[in-house]
Amino acid sequence: MTLTGSMLIGQHAVYGNREAIRAINPATDRPLEPAYHGGSGEHVERACALAWAAFDTFRETSLEVRASFLESIAEHIEALGDELIERAVAETGLPPQRIQGERGRTCGQLRTFARTVRAGEWLDVRVDTAEPSRQPLPRADLRQRQVPLGPVAVFGASNFPLAFSVAGGDTASALAAGCPVIVKAHGAHPGTSELVGRAVAQAVSACGLPPGVFSLLYGSGREVGIALVTDARIKAVGFTGSRSGGLALTQAAQARPEPIPVYAEMSSINPVLLFPAALQARASTLAEGFVASLTQGAGQFCTNPGLLIARAGEALDRFIGAASERLQGCTAQTMLTPGIFNAYATGVSALAEHAQVVARGLPATGPNQGQAHLFITQADAFLANQHLQAEIFGASALLVVCADDVQVRQVCEHLEGQLTATLHLEAADLASASALLPVLERKAGRLLVNGWPTGVEVCDAMVHGGPFPATSDARSTSVGTAAILRFLRPVCYQDFPDSLLPHALEQANPLQLRRLLNGRREV
Amino acid sequence: MTLTGSMLIGQHAVYGNREAIRAINPATDRPLEPAYHGGSGEHVERACALAWAAFDTFRETSLEVRASFLESIAEHIEALGDELIERAVAETGLPPQRIQGERGRTCGQLRTFARTVRAGEWLDVRVDTAEPSRQPLPRADLRQRQVPLGPVAVFGASNFPLAFSVAGGDTASALAAGCPVIVKAHGAHPGTSELVGRAVAQAVSACGLPPGVFSLLYGSGREVGIALVTDARIKAVGFTGSRSGGLALTQAAQARPEPIPVYAEMSSINPVLLFPAALQARASTLAEGFVASLTQGAGQFCTNPGLLIARAGEALDRFIGAASERLQGCTAQTMLTPGIFNAYATGVSALAEHAQVVARGLPATGPNQGQAHLFITQADAFLANQHLQAEIFGASALLVVCADDVQVRQVCEHLEGQLTATLHLEAADLASASALLPVLERKAGRLLVNGWPTGVEVCDAMVHGGPFPATSDARSTSVGTAAILRFLRPVCYQDFPDSLLPHALEQANPLQLRRLLNGRREV
Repeated sequence: MTLTGSMLIGQHAVYGNREAIRAINPATDRPLEPAYHGGSGEHVERACALAWAAFDTFRETSLEVRASFLESIAEHIEALGDELIERAVAETGLPPQRIQGERGRTCGQLRTFARTVRAGEWLDVRVDTAEPSRQPLPRADLRQRQVPLGPVAVFGASNFPLAFSVAGGDTASALAAGCPVIVKAHGAHPGTSELVGRAVAQAVSACGLPPGVFSLLYGSGREVGIALVTDARIKAVGFTGSRSGGLALTQAAQARPEPIPVYAEMSSINPVLLFPAALQARASTLAEGFVASLTQGAGQFCTNPGLLIARAGEALDRFIGAASERLQGCTAQTMLTPGIFNAYATGVSALAEHAQVVARGLPATGPNQGQAHLFITQADAFLANQHLQAEIFGASALLVVCADDVQVRQVCEHLEGQLTATLHLEAADLASASALLPVLERKAGRLLVNGWPTGVEVCDAMVHGGPFPATSDARSTSVGTAAILRFLRPVCYQDFPDSLLPHALEQANPLQLRRLLNGRREV
Repeated sequence: MTLTGSMLIGQHAVYGNREAIRAINPATDRPLEPAYHGGSGEHVERACALAWAAFDTFRETSLEVRASFLESIAEHIEALGDELIERAVAETGLPPQRIQGERGRTCGQLRTFARTVRAGEWLDVRVDTAEPSRQPLPRADLRQRQVPLGPVAVFGASNFPLAFSVAGGDTASALAAGCPVIVKAHGAHPGTSELVGRAVAQAVSACGLPPGVFSLLYGSGREVGIALVTDARIKAVGFTGSRSGGLALTQAAQARPEPIPVYAEMSSINPVLLFPAALQARASTLAEGFVASLTQGAGQFCTNPGLLIARAGEALDRFIGAASERLQGCTAQTMLTPGIFNAYATGVSALAEHAQVVARGLPATGPNQGQAHLFITQADAFLANQHLQAEIFGASALLVVCADDVQVRQVCEHLEGQLTATLHLEAADLASASALLPVLERKAGRLLVNGWPTGVEVCDAMVHGGPFPATSDARSTSVGTAAILRFLRPVCYQDFPDSLLPHALEQANPLQLRRLLNGRREV
């Protein structure tokens, strides 16, 4: 398939009329062809009109049709073959194995949502049947189901060009819920976006769905992004990216005549607590695991372990020594874009003014290569300086040294909201860890014991979310099957004749759902 | 029990130091003793500090303890006896039977949430067990439960002095979720609020819970209300009231360093569609039902039928005639407060400039009595003038006359978000109604057939919510057991030893919950 540089408005390839966006190969700093001209407000208008026209039809497609559609997207992505891998590698600087793995994750994610759609639990069907002779007043027949919110705007992430981009988690969960999707492609990987966008459009066509179920736009955040979020036909937003970007979209969404939900996954430094007995027992193993997690993918994960918290002592010194030694051998890795590399370099320089460098990785040997960094500070300094907990996107971490458990608790209470918090512990640490759990539960969406936060499983129990500023809405997850719940709202049907009810609510229960029927769950 | 004019900060009676609030008996326009001096930021600070101190303990109380607490509140409210009824009647002008019924509903609501808490489905437990030998990567053990958001600020409503005030739906659902509650009492019924507040505080004490689980403050929205919503320890807000009030709180909550969810139930005119065959078959019965619903409780319900939509014709003329005749015999009823009465009078006058009066109820014979009104306009005029769909809180309705089904659809599409939409139909109307359902589902939280929207059942399937401006968050309901979901967020536990897991997630499933275990629902 030849890349064309066009957007997709429904099934139509449309060329933008704004400034050209060209991907940069970060490994060479050279631009990649073709140019992608940005769209304008007029393109947003056309995509929204199509999405709106598709909504009522798409949302009432059967569970089977919608599930098959998600599976068809996965098949069409797989059919792109090596071209997708090669283009994504060129646009991101990530190694081919990583992109291959991410393709598997992306297609697996689509198929997981297909299973979730078919199971139908997300419809949350509740039925309270009529009690005409109840005193003092009769009870009506009341039935509740979940319906999709409406067309969703999805903003692709830079760091997952497949799994959190055009056909990534936000898109899959919104489509699963029955919402048409308009993606604003991330400017860092437009070619990858075009390829995947075409695969989605092919699946729309193959499944006989209305063309407005999916559109793909390019362009500036200020013009296309804000126009999308403020269009009255867009009813929710999914975003993964920076804190400033997420806040700008959230504020635009709230300033609308009809405010809408924004699910922005933004900023997290993912604290890792090293408890005394764990440090005592395995300082060197911990250092090894830490450095591997820190430097994986050039540190460009939302769940990168950017903060270590531990009590001072000989065991911690051993950890520091082992981690420093490891880190010093880490090669600098090509980062996703020149912009991300520059932000990383700036962030590291700024942190160096407030904290001491413990160790650095090997210096860069090519363009846009991030050098790993480990900093250290004392708890008092950390508590006194809010800048020390700003996210630095990349392989940089700060170790906060505490005098005692009281200070560990103070540091934890001082943290902003996080995607994850990790506890490394042995049996002797259980009492301390247990005492700290209430704090960590208030701070983070996922708590780990004796693991590393990078690596996010797509499953029912996953939470990739957390209190602000980890996300703009702590009541949800952007990874895992519960992500479908973000794009739904309940509707109650009172005294409806069976012939007017949606299938999910018909008395005979044709979808065989486990309803909450008069207060009891059907089995 | 003697009313004291004090606030309740935990178990302490505290007197405010701001301007005195006195309830007005709207039937006599006379102030009622005692005076309630408004609180200040300092009182908000103390209540929040107590709530925060109580949170970690309260949220981990057992399901049984929390359910018993809700039941204890109901018992303590019932123990207030006639004093509560008499004071509420004096403060609201509502008849004693209505207040008695509302007390029953309030206590029933608390007991319904107790059952919901015990059943534990709201914990939404999801377990994906470890797969250590999975290729290419092992899967960790992942377990998810819901945890409460944190202390909740509840703003009592004027029109349900019991069921949506101090121990009303927002308070019951937040406490059920495990959130401490700070209520800002509505200034219209401070004595009722004090009585109920003491009942809640007695239940807190009787159940051995931390005192900060509940506080009750008086004061101005600008000072106490905004201070509450912007306190960093408040993590969600429940509000029932005006659009302007709800928007002010929402904006304050969004401007915080850490934005928080606001569940504001604000504004709805509850369209009622009268289909041709229904009008043909029973114009007079429909008129009777409509006027009864419109004038019930002086029209002071969020679900009051403020908009009728119908096709022109002889049957509609018969409906208008019958409704006018009925309405003209309706006595003016005392409204809740002088302020609400004045707003009603102003709203009716403003509407009279844009629409024609069809009928009026009997004029007032005492202070603050609202005279019922029915207005009429043509669909074209309605579509051209956004002011025609502004809520007038009270017994006023507007009939929109349409030329055909196309215009009916245009009018429906033109509507803002609503709590309810009602369809009156016969078999011959089913096709028209069915064609309109997608529009109505997008517009409203509850759809009714051949009923009237006033009367909101507290049950599992109820939705008292809907798209903006009916509420600030269409993803939820403020009535019914699903309201507990508003105050929760998911947390995932990865590779936790059983001894560190919360009981709900322990491998042996001691709470006997129906978990989603490796993709299958346990029965």
